[in-house]
Amino acid sequence: MTSKMASCIFCKIIKGDIPCFKLFESDKTLAFLDINPLSRGHALVIPKFHGEKLTDIPDEDLTELLPVAKKLALATGAAEYNILQNNGAGAHQVVEHVHFHMIPKPNAQEGLGISWPQQPTDMDKLKALSEEIKSKM
Amino acid sequence: MTSKMASCIFCKIIKGDIPCFKLFESDKTLAFLDINPLSRGHALVIPKFHGEKLTDIPDEDLTELLPVAKKLALATGAAEYNILQNNGAGAHQVVEHVHFHMIPKPNAQEGLGISWPQQPTDMDKLKALSEEIKSKM
Ligand SMILES: [Zn+2]
Ligand SMILES: [Zn+2]
Repeated sequence: MTSKMASCIFCKIIKGDIPCFKLFESDKTLAFLDINPLSRGHALVIPKFHGEKLTDIPDEDLTELLPVAKKLALATGAAEYNILQNNGAGAHQVVEHVHFHMIPKPNAQEGLGISWPQQPTDMDKLKALSEEIKSKM
Repeated sequence: MTSKMASCIFCKIIKGDIPCFKLFESDKTLAFLDINPLSRGHALVIPKFHGEKLTDIPDEDLTELLPVAKKLALATGAAEYNILQNNGAGAHQVVEHVHFHMIPKPNAQEGLGISWPQQPTDMDKLKALSEEIKSKM
């Protein structure tokens, strides 16, 4: 265990050293209620594999996360909801262990607030960018 | 094909009837640039299976989405980024075919803007809620 894992609050929850309101557990995945919810039913789905960002998690530890998020959305009965995963402090990540939020959006006030600073469409720039990204995939 | 699929812009992109800046394609998944980006590299990953919300998509059509989102994040070289999937107009969904945004967050101005109207922690309420949700999973 690295020292980052030793101090990681979500790794402690996985180990059972810190309690949680557990909703689902398998060999690769854990889901539990967020204790500072944005709305009723706000829950987290995490891989048991410790990694700070999505890009740090092996594919095989990612595949079950969305099926579990789907189960949570169904079980909470949320009609509208957001799935959100933040990578980096500048992108609003607080706990440095990958976690997906399932956040019911019951009304305009509760749940996730989003602002969408859309940029102008520039087809030439997008075409060049798509070639650049494809060459790196 | 239902009439909803016939009029769905993402189903038309999947069929090739509408062009896109394609980044990845497999038998179940398509990824392409968002043409109204919030930041450089803002891309979408979608299941080819038509469904409006996460809860409408079979598990087997969900498993590849995050591994592809990871590939996109790596290929764009984004240091910080958000993964977001909106369900319902009230939750900021615009196109009614499930899509995951991979949105680089290069600075405070560009990329996704988030507000976080956190509710007070109420352990008794959370315990009761966790029992209720678990009973439905
Ligand atoms: Zn951890
Ligand atoms: Zn569609």
